[in-house]
Amino acid sequence: MNDSDYKLTLSPVASQDYRDAMRRFAGAVHIVTTDGNKGKRGLTISACCSLSDTPPTILVCLMRDRGNNRTFIENGRFCLNTLGKHHQSLSDTFGGREGCLSQENRFALAKWQTLKTGAPVLDDALVSFDCRLVHWHEYATHYILIGEVVALKSSDMDDALIYLNRSYHNIKI
Amino acid sequence: MNDSDYKLTLSPVASQDYRDAMRRFAGAVHIVTTDGNKGKRGLTISACCSLSDTPPTILVCLMRDRGNNRTFIENGRFCLNTLGKHHQSLSDTFGGREGCLSQENRFALAKWQTLKTGAPVLDDALVSFDCRLVHWHEYATHYILIGEVVALKSSDMDDALIYLNRSYHNIKI
Repeated sequence: MNDSDYKLTLSPVASQDYRDAMRRFAGAVHIVTTDGNKGKRGLTISACCSLSDTPPTILVCLMRDRGNNRTFIENGRFCLNTLGKHHQSLSDTFGGREGCLSQENRFALAKWQTLKTGAPVLDDALVSFDCRLVHWHEYATHYILIGEVVALKSSDMDDALIYLNRSYHNIKI
Repeated sequence: MNDSDYKLTLSPVASQDYRDAMRRFAGAVHIVTTDGNKGKRGLTISACCSLSDTPPTILVCLMRDRGNNRTFIENGRFCLNTLGKHHQSLSDTFGGREGCLSQENRFALAKWQTLKTGAPVLDDALVSFDCRLVHWHEYATHYILIGEVVALKSSDMDDALIYLNRSYHNIKI
């Protein structure tokens, strides 16, 4: 490998350099939803992962400076819906800025059901993890939500939707 | 969609059902490493994500019942190395059970360097996030490590390595 083949950044690492580097970190695309006393909300994310299988537990990172994201904490429940190839347009919609389309109009673009917690479950997601919020932390610009999975719904009916290098890709399951 | 096209599991969700559902959650493949007073260690993971870009921060989940994973906390530093297509065999090696091959012999299979913290940086990773551990939590079977990125190294020289449905896949960057 020649010096010209890679990019090196030493401390302090600027936010833009970090975002550029993150282009190479592929992420499955999901819509995380909530519903309850504080209202219904959904948004597209890729910053989430499995935390434990005993008990089944999901971890989700959400920006704090979108004021409405506190709804996920206040409702105490969320559903992580993992998207397939045919959800690309829905991913764009739920990833868009507030004001472009109301939450109500976003939800109207797909079919939803509920399982155990009441958080919206996308009808044809590859898999939906219906979670009871059991812990949350704040760090820097983000909330870290930890949810125990109380119900599951899954299908193998589509390719997985992946985000890498600022564009969508698909992988056959 | 017919009833037979999907699988539904209501509470309590068994660990096996959760692991089966997680098959549909694609993950980029990484080797996370550490080095310091408590020794050198590396293992293959996919349970990690970006936490913040201000400051640049990475979140990594590690099993607690592998005793040596505490090394990451005690050293207070780690490097997340995102793998490419040509690292599939290295991924298997660092994902294998202890005893099959010592840590020393695993590291001998690839070229490594250091940047800022001293944690091993894989020479030809798609991207390496060299991190100072700033927080950690325990939840159920896992540690949650939060690392501030103090140095970065990235290249576009290979396809991304993805794990989905219990097998490897590649995506062109």
